[in-house]
Amino acid sequence: MLPEGIDLDRLVASALLRNESYERLRWLCDNVGGRVAGSPAGEAAEQWAAEALRSFGLEPTFEPFEIDAWERGDLEAVALGPAPWRLCALAHGNSPQRASLTAEVVDAGHGERPDLERLTERVRGRWVLCDEGVAPGHRPLHRSEKLALAAEFGAAGLLLYSSAPGNLPRTGMCAEREAPIPGIGISQEDGARLKRLLASGVTLSVKVEMSNRIRRATVRNVIAEIPGTERPEEVVLAGAHLDSWDPSQGATDNGLGSAIVLDLARVLAQNLPTPRRTLRFALWAAEEVGLLGSKHHARLHAAELPNYAAVLNFDMTGTPHGYWIPGESELPPLFRQLAERLDGLGMDPDSFDGKAGLHSDHQPFMLEGVPVVGLLGRLEGQGGHYYHAVGDTFEKVSKPGLCRAVAVGACTMAALAESERRPLEHRTRERVVRMVTDADLLEALAVEGWRP
Amino acid sequence: MLPEGIDLDRLVASALLRNESYERLRWLCDNVGGRVAGSPAGEAAEQWAAEALRSFGLEPTFEPFEIDAWERGDLEAVALGPAPWRLCALAHGNSPQRASLTAEVVDAGHGERPDLERLTERVRGRWVLCDEGVAPGHRPLHRSEKLALAAEFGAAGLLLYSSAPGNLPRTGMCAEREAPIPGIGISQEDGARLKRLLASGVTLSVKVEMSNRIRRATVRNVIAEIPGTERPEEVVLAGAHLDSWDPSQGATDNGLGSAIVLDLARVLAQNLPTPRRTLRFALWAAEEVGLLGSKHHARLHAAELPNYAAVLNFDMTGTPHGYWIPGESELPPLFRQLAERLDGLGMDPDSFDGKAGLHSDHQPFMLEGVPVVGLLGRLEGQGGHYYHAVGDTFEKVSKPGLCRAVAVGACTMAALAESERRPLEHRTRERVVRMVTDADLLEALAVEGWRP
Repeated sequence: MLPEGIDLDRLVASALLRNESYERLRWLCDNVGGRVAGSPAGEAAEQWAAEALRSFGLEPTFEPFEIDAWERGDLEAVALGPAPWRLCALAHGNSPQRASLTAEVVDAGHGERPDLERLTERVRGRWVLCDEGVAPGHRPLHRSEKLALAAEFGAAGLLLYSSAPGNLPRTGMCAEREAPIPGIGISQEDGARLKRLLASGVTLSVKVEMSNRIRRATVRNVIAEIPGTERPEEVVLAGAHLDSWDPSQGATDNGLGSAIVLDLARVLAQNLPTPRRTLRFALWAAEEVGLLGSKHHARLHAAELPNYAAVLNFDMTGTPHGYWIPGESELPPLFRQLAERLDGLGMDPDSFDGKAGLHSDHQPFMLEGVPVVGLLGRLEGQGGHYYHAVGDTFEKVSKPGLCRAVAVGACTMAALAESERRPLEHRTRERVVRMVTDADLLEALAVEGWRP
Repeated sequence: MLPEGIDLDRLVASALLRNESYERLRWLCDNVGGRVAGSPAGEAAEQWAAEALRSFGLEPTFEPFEIDAWERGDLEAVALGPAPWRLCALAHGNSPQRASLTAEVVDAGHGERPDLERLTERVRGRWVLCDEGVAPGHRPLHRSEKLALAAEFGAAGLLLYSSAPGNLPRTGMCAEREAPIPGIGISQEDGARLKRLLASGVTLSVKVEMSNRIRRATVRNVIAEIPGTERPEEVVLAGAHLDSWDPSQGATDNGLGSAIVLDLARVLAQNLPTPRRTLRFALWAAEEVGLLGSKHHARLHAAELPNYAAVLNFDMTGTPHGYWIPGESELPPLFRQLAERLDGLGMDPDSFDGKAGLHSDHQPFMLEGVPVVGLLGRLEGQGGHYYHAVGDTFEKVSKPGLCRAVAVGACTMAALAESERRPLEHRTRERVVRMVTDADLLEALAVEGWRP
């Protein structure tokens, strides 16, 4: 079923032996670093992507749109316990532009509704301290949901401590727009100390002085394509978000995915210049602040979406070992054949996930019924440890892993572009609702205003 | 040869089943935290130790002395490269009280003399960037030696980057008194980025604004003893340093050792109240800033040192597996017998080290010929990863490991105290010189003014 005429050998060799992306990623990490949506660094990253595309002979286009860009300011957080100490803390994105607050701390476990109901009035006017965990059988809450819950119970603010040891507070969005109360990531160690002191009966306050800034800014998706020859209106899209958080270099999240998509463009431009379907490459803006780039694209191209044959998303894509195709109960034949042919690259036809998930740029397409394809992968070394924290830097990226993701991605895009028939059906509204329901995501989507 | 009449069962059971130290350490970590010599926290730690000793029925005495106490102030370090970024940095102890400096950076490898000789004039007026490593066959240099070398070659300052990933710059003394140039620990990630950019031909400057304070302060060794009944003038001493660096809670370095020594005092006071020799317990002040407490004690008690039967030192003591007795070519019989009896606790008679080492509180005693005994051990989990960095916090300490160190330490002290004859000879000056020479430590000691 694998369409004839695709030279997998050339695609794989080009990905593994002529990879340019690792060095390109180094440049982005070292010369641009963190690139929050709407910042000058964000603009530098757009130029970086556009120049790479031009160097492959592709002409990038830009899809500009306006956002409320949050800019980190100063933060000082001090625990006023028996021995005052400075917390290792990072404001969450969209935290208030000003906060000057001293309040007692209450330990709220995972910060889920039952935790807050147990504390009732003791939450009011206090800092809610919680971890990143989830009670058995519960749906994991996004930090913005924990913040909204804390606010609903009258808390003064949220202190969310990291699950990773080693001075690694995490940032990330805590609200769609300026949050009603401060949301602050603190280190696991500071969280554990606060918890221990509270458990020993000590009364603790935390004092926070914080300033941030929100202003209008223009950001841009960067798009390029290799037009299809037989079915140019049918699109196989590979995307990755270009923006990152500021405390690190945004190497694995998501310089890595951006580098993969750019090298996919190179490999395919050089080895599949006249595909049957159109190959499109997208570097999304403003994913970290609400999937804004991919949502903008989906709105802008709403009429064409039924013609999108597949959307591949690369976000923190580790060394690949299988396919993720939400809504499928088993691996479709084309992908099984690909996984078997690519097993020397680590792909395993039995490694498959068909459960829907949220919170990356496939989401707006998935909800519109576009078939979504991802690679299951493992971030080598300590990549995941530094998620949204300082330490997500270039050295955490595996060059062999990156090359293998490009190789598998290029073969997959080629197969999708060249197949006689579209290998994945567009999903009906009913099927989308079913896959979202099966994955227990209705409530999470309702928070975003999505209704079946 | 193991003296009769020592009830090892009771000592071990008391250490393992009635350990008080883990909870005591939690209190120190959470309620006092980092305790730099001469700070209010340092004084709180002295009180913590004294109160523990009193609670075992021992009467603590204090050995006060004055030091120049270095107090960390503000530090801002910014790399002025293609995209300026703030370095994750910690001043080294005794860095200048004021520094306001912008200078170019040169990559100086390990920062050893050949590295600087290779760079010659390019070091002058620049930041020397180096790692914590050592060239094959070379003696590892202490950070103060790297700083002295950089200063000798006319550098403007030293940027020493950590060998541990994850936003973990390390502090520690960089000079005996106020350093001639700033010494700054930076994260591995920032070090790697600076190196990569320099390697790509970019010219980089680093701007540092720093303020610290040095003032006179009084610190105290805290001492207690169980007087010997037959040979009270002969002393078996167990010591650990009480001071720590400030960015963390000083949990493994060296709250751990302090907790072990305090629990040794408890176990032995409760189970060996009338030892043949005197048992002495010492919580040293100001180890981190030059072994000042143990040096003070060795000077104060110079006339009695020939009667010290042994000095046990506990510094970052992990789960024990063997003995370290500098100057011995093989494990002496008493210790072999102990290791065999305690193999159920993880001790291994074949795990032995007899090579001299420096940089902890055994050093002043070892150089005066007093027999020194240590436990070889492994810090469980990621303990060593956080050496002199944020993240050396309570959770990094293993309670079973702590208990086992107390058990082995108590049995060892009891055997040393009760033996008919002193199991280890006082070392002659000649033997001290030989062990120091064999371990290639003459040059390192010469820096401290020690002459054979």
